[in-house]
Amino acid sequence: MGHLDPYFLTLLDDTQSMLREVFGTKNALTLPISATGSAGMETCFVNLLEAGDRALICRHGVFGGRMAEVARRCGAEVTVVDAPWGRAIDPNDVARIAKGGAFKVLALVHAETSTGVLQDLSPFRSIADSCGALLVVDAVTSLGGVAIEIDRMGIDAVYSGTQKCLSCPPGLSPVSFSERAQGVLENRKTPVQSWYFDLTLIGRYFGTERVYHHTAPVNMIYALHESLRLVLEEGLHARYRRHRDHARALWAGLEGIGIALPVESSVRLPPLTLAQIPEGVDDRKVRARLLDEHGLEIGGGLGEFAGKAWRIGLMGASSTPRHIELCLRALEEALG
Amino acid sequence: MGHLDPYFLTLLDDTQSMLREVFGTKNALTLPISATGSAGMETCFVNLLEAGDRALICRHGVFGGRMAEVARRCGAEVTVVDAPWGRAIDPNDVARIAKGGAFKVLALVHAETSTGVLQDLSPFRSIADSCGALLVVDAVTSLGGVAIEIDRMGIDAVYSGTQKCLSCPPGLSPVSFSERAQGVLENRKTPVQSWYFDLTLIGRYFGTERVYHHTAPVNMIYALHESLRLVLEEGLHARYRRHRDHARALWAGLEGIGIALPVESSVRLPPLTLAQIPEGVDDRKVRARLLDEHGLEIGGGLGEFAGKAWRIGLMGASSTPRHIELCLRALEEALG
Repeated sequence: MGHLDPYFLTLLDDTQSMLREVFGTKNALTLPISATGSAGMETCFVNLLEAGDRALICRHGVFGGRMAEVARRCGAEVTVVDAPWGRAIDPNDVARIAKGGAFKVLALVHAETSTGVLQDLSPFRSIADSCGALLVVDAVTSLGGVAIEIDRMGIDAVYSGTQKCLSCPPGLSPVSFSERAQGVLENRKTPVQSWYFDLTLIGRYFGTERVYHHTAPVNMIYALHESLRLVLEEGLHARYRRHRDHARALWAGLEGIGIALPVESSVRLPPLTLAQIPEGVDDRKVRARLLDEHGLEIGGGLGEFAGKAWRIGLMGASSTPRHIELCLRALEEALG
Repeated sequence: MGHLDPYFLTLLDDTQSMLREVFGTKNALTLPISATGSAGMETCFVNLLEAGDRALICRHGVFGGRMAEVARRCGAEVTVVDAPWGRAIDPNDVARIAKGGAFKVLALVHAETSTGVLQDLSPFRSIADSCGALLVVDAVTSLGGVAIEIDRMGIDAVYSGTQKCLSCPPGLSPVSFSERAQGVLENRKTPVQSWYFDLTLIGRYFGTERVYHHTAPVNMIYALHESLRLVLEEGLHARYRRHRDHARALWAGLEGIGIALPVESSVRLPPLTLAQIPEGVDDRKVRARLLDEHGLEIGGGLGEFAGKAWRIGLMGASSTPRHIELCLRALEEALG
């Protein structure tokens, strides 16, 4: 099926319309970028920032740090607000800095995959307003697993990935831009530094003009279409509840076998659980054993948690009682 | 299968080693970029060029023009050498300008998909040497369909796509960098402006360190692995011969039903044929009819050939006698 075939173009329209539903938005500029999640991050920054712009970026894990790095490569002057790894960003810290001056962009991560922290987004629209900023959110590990209603939250630009709670193969990065963000894009003084991620060009293929930009990854878009269809068939609220309930069962089970959970329960992320590696346990050996003997992959710790914690995903199709039981049994066995 | 799973990593190694064979290179830095062909173009320029560098770019169709645009967005000072659409670049024109000064990069398109012209690459290594430039080549529509031996040709950086003569779905862009290009990359004064396409980071995932950069599009890499396996099973020379023989049959057939071929036979590109639309024929109507009645898609003209010529692909799995017969019969019928 060709990427300009009329049949494929209707499938593309359907994909965009389902994406809007899952994102909770009416944004016209809602589409999958033809590359993995981190490319969605780059798409947001590269389209909204120009050299010399100021960006206020919250960092409480790998992905906040990556946002700061990407923004700097756009020539932006970046101010970082940190929170300790495993904790949420304190909105008061951000508000204090926002009061001090104007920013083009205020960015934060909704679901930090590196630490298993879920950030409450509700205070940030008014903080962004206080410094005149667009609000940019990383929803890679939340989309389809944790409620994110971007219109209600006043989010201006959001990006996600397909391989987390959507249970689609990796390869696309859904993004959505508000009218305000689109306005900023249209009024840039300089061209977007990336041709491939330039939404002024990509938007003309996904819009009504159907102008060729690059060859769309047709098969991946079929996969995304099917995964979004399954998400909506289950229903968003049922799906969020399923992720929450199963996460709670996993948390109780882990604590039951003596594994501590470093993230406070009020900000724990249902699709991804940070589990402390017990004293004296060999991280790599346990993970290799889980993979070899049970076909079960759990993530190693990242950054400050490398070697100290595991990251256990219960995302989309893998958020089931069977996966929880397998994981607990396998861990119990491996820890002897 | 996870993107850091030991089994997947061996598949990745195999994919890289088959890619080297198809590219005709021993380059260590040979890998698929996680995005479609145009992203490979951006990867080459963004890694090799820094603001203020001079680039000499040959343009005889859409993709040469795109290279110039991408290079400009890297902050490079771009000099363009043009050839008329439907003709090859004259190496003498390039040599004349190269004599006049130093360039960081000399870039050209091997197989211009917008015009159906195959460029002889052999004069360009010495022209690049005369101005101290790295030689960058677009091999999107040649890889796996037309001989391209990048080490023998002294090419420093090359990019391709998966959906042309490799007959793999679109979604990856194989690239290869020579040692010299890698040296230029390692000695940059400024960071690569794109984080997603930064080969200093991507190379650490594909190399022996296996450092996480972004989640590799696992399923697409399986697809590329299988398509490369099939290419090598057929044999490179047998495959090139097949593309050439079938193209000749198509050309004879088209001329037989009164359709002129605007590109001179000596530079005609086997995988993609430019066919002149006969006087008085409705371009869109014929293409819609081919698609509706025969499930056959031929490309519309691009740029100067829009509405004036069709582009007929015989690439990879579609370069067969059956496809040629279907195309000729369908066209004859549609033209009445």
